[in-house]
Amino acid sequence: MQAEIISVGTELLLGEIVDTNAAWLAQQLSPLGVDLYWVSTVGDNQGRLAQVLRRALDRSGLVIVTGGLGPTEDDVTREAIAEALGEEMVVQPELAEHLRCFFAQRGYTMPERNLKQATLIASARALDNPVGTAPGWWVEHQDHILVTMPGVPFEMERMWRDQALPRLRARLGGEIIVTRTFKTVGIGESRAEELVSHLIHSFNPSLATYAKRDGVHLRVAAKAATEAQARAMIADLEARVREVIGPYIYGVDDETLESALGQLFRERGLTLATMESCTGGLLASTITDAPGSSAYFRGGMVAYAIAAKEQWGVDPAIIKEYGVVSPQVAAAMATAARREVGADVGLGITGVAGPDPLDGQPPGTLYLGLDIQGQVDTFSGFYGSERRQVKRVAVLYALGFLRRKLLELEGTVPVDGRLSK
Amino acid sequence: MQAEIISVGTELLLGEIVDTNAAWLAQQLSPLGVDLYWVSTVGDNQGRLAQVLRRALDRSGLVIVTGGLGPTEDDVTREAIAEALGEEMVVQPELAEHLRCFFAQRGYTMPERNLKQATLIASARALDNPVGTAPGWWVEHQDHILVTMPGVPFEMERMWRDQALPRLRARLGGEIIVTRTFKTVGIGESRAEELVSHLIHSFNPSLATYAKRDGVHLRVAAKAATEAQARAMIADLEARVREVIGPYIYGVDDETLESALGQLFRERGLTLATMESCTGGLLASTITDAPGSSAYFRGGMVAYAIAAKEQWGVDPAIIKEYGVVSPQVAAAMATAARREVGADVGLGITGVAGPDPLDGQPPGTLYLGLDIQGQVDTFSGFYGSERRQVKRVAVLYALGFLRRKLLELEGTVPVDGRLSK
Repeated sequence: MQAEIISVGTELLLGEIVDTNAAWLAQQLSPLGVDLYWVSTVGDNQGRLAQVLRRALDRSGLVIVTGGLGPTEDDVTREAIAEALGEEMVVQPELAEHLRCFFAQRGYTMPERNLKQATLIASARALDNPVGTAPGWWVEHQDHILVTMPGVPFEMERMWRDQALPRLRARLGGEIIVTRTFKTVGIGESRAEELVSHLIHSFNPSLATYAKRDGVHLRVAAKAATEAQARAMIADLEARVREVIGPYIYGVDDETLESALGQLFRERGLTLATMESCTGGLLASTITDAPGSSAYFRGGMVAYAIAAKEQWGVDPAIIKEYGVVSPQVAAAMATAARREVGADVGLGITGVAGPDPLDGQPPGTLYLGLDIQGQVDTFSGFYGSERRQVKRVAVLYALGFLRRKLLELEGTVPVDGRLSK
Repeated sequence: MQAEIISVGTELLLGEIVDTNAAWLAQQLSPLGVDLYWVSTVGDNQGRLAQVLRRALDRSGLVIVTGGLGPTEDDVTREAIAEALGEEMVVQPELAEHLRCFFAQRGYTMPERNLKQATLIASARALDNPVGTAPGWWVEHQDHILVTMPGVPFEMERMWRDQALPRLRARLGGEIIVTRTFKTVGIGESRAEELVSHLIHSFNPSLATYAKRDGVHLRVAAKAATEAQARAMIADLEARVREVIGPYIYGVDDETLESALGQLFRERGLTLATMESCTGGLLASTITDAPGSSAYFRGGMVAYAIAAKEQWGVDPAIIKEYGVVSPQVAAAMATAARREVGADVGLGITGVAGPDPLDGQPPGTLYLGLDIQGQVDTFSGFYGSERRQVKRVAVLYALGFLRRKLLELEGTVPVDGRLSK
């Protein structure tokens, strides 16, 4: 079944609020095996909305509309549906009674203009709204289903789960889709796509790559009659994906890089300390985004001034000889971080966040130092140019580097780009 | 002029990401006097995208497309535009050269598949992308303008501001709308609205309040024949807004709280140090988001473990007596931060980020300590419950508290809620 979402509201077109309903509903549709092809936003304008509705009912088996069900003159979703289908809105006594009770329970008399919330057209059935005044509409029209719900997210979500979804499941029967997302770090999108290119053209299960803020994601989706069948198809493709790209995968679905790292530290009983300069605290902040990080993260230093680096144990002679933006200083920061707070692992970052060059080096220059119980490594790179992006990418690379080196000690990750097990 | 936005990306239709670009662009259009009538989301499907593009070019004078400009096979926005307009994509040697340099600077060879990012169609001009590999397209077709930009928000926003917007302004002429946004901290939206309620009902210039991540914003908009006239109208309303709410305003338009604070530090020749626990580095990271922060920010400590707090000068007796989550420890952290790196001002944060309670106190508990050249103050509050939100709000309050206390020393901000000058 092909689906389409229509979000109604002039405030959306003015950018005053971001449409989160469409994304929420989209996530609901994909596991049902419903293909969402179109999402549109329309203002509170009856003519334009009726036009969009007509096109939607023409091309999509399932049309979901949110918003515009309020009591004011601006709210014209019901009117537009009636116009598009050529039907009349008629007040339903039982809905009107329900509405009056809703107000009475809260100590108010229902304003007469709310009465339009108690209307239906002939092809519509009401969807109860226990948490607001606007009932939804379930409309069936020439084999097409039109679901209309309020725009307020918690009202819409509840109406969807309790009423629209069960009706829809009953109608669909048939196939479901299961997806699984593998998150990687330390590999670019082009390279990732290259490695899995022999798997990427299969249609079901399908595989696609996405460059995200937390690394490249590979998403596997399978469509089958039962969830168990879909999961088996995914497991099969997952095994083939892991064969070529496994060591780069740090997590699945909702897992984050920082929580995956936290797991590595907890399993090994290691503790961590950081000393960062160009990332200005974002490294420590990202590490501590993981709940429970206090179990292994001892502390971090944001050594912004050179004096602070020296205060915390970086040898002034190294800064003098190699410059503050250098692999040698990154390594010295890693060792100093370990020693300052007594941790097993120290991670150091020095670089140039920008916008101005520092010490003769351009924004985006990055050096990482890592000291794992006395074994010191460095990594250098050049990423981005906008200050916040430089910080963000530097942290991603630092955590990826840390993960790789921890696993390398056990021979389970790629060394110098080659895969080895 | 009527405008239309098309957001491209299958991940949008799967609900994996929320489309924030459309709302951002919508906010840009309204001050230009451009009416946004339609927003659509389409997957990475050339045929459907071409169909949406044809309809858009048919009914809207300005069509803005974001997303689908990447190098992979999935990215088909260029191909769909070429199809819709019946034109050929041709590689431009100078764009290809630019792209090769982008990769070379980062130590990579450009993968050949990236070459499609160096193409144009005859009716397109390239929009430079200094922060990514995908140039945009500015297309003029039968009196319609089609602007195509990358989907990555910071790349899109920069390309819009630096390149699309100036071209568009030149084309529009006519009545213009000017807006000015005043950003506040330390006051809630209801209270802000109350204070300016006598000004909020005027239509032109208009005034509206918005609760944002970095405090409550007040946006003033004026429509006039010339920019000078609109600016004069805004200046008049601005004066009346500042009369009642001035001391809470930390910045205008693009100014951030951290850059406004940086300005205060630079003007006074003061230096700053931080010691934070529950915010885990986010305080230092936010402070260093301001370009030039190295001029006043000496360094920060993320004292996650109690041992780290003690190592950096917090008296173990205070921790023992009052508990690690207490105003006394926050104050001791502020003083210790100052002393450890030799700064004029020390800011300390202790609290509970969650998800678990700490030291018998629930997630959201927050204590701030501030030491300005030996003068110590504390602040306590309770904000939010989700870990990242707790961190974010804690940092906002910490910076707001720091700003207020710096200004209070000079008698230019509200003391205990009363306005004084």
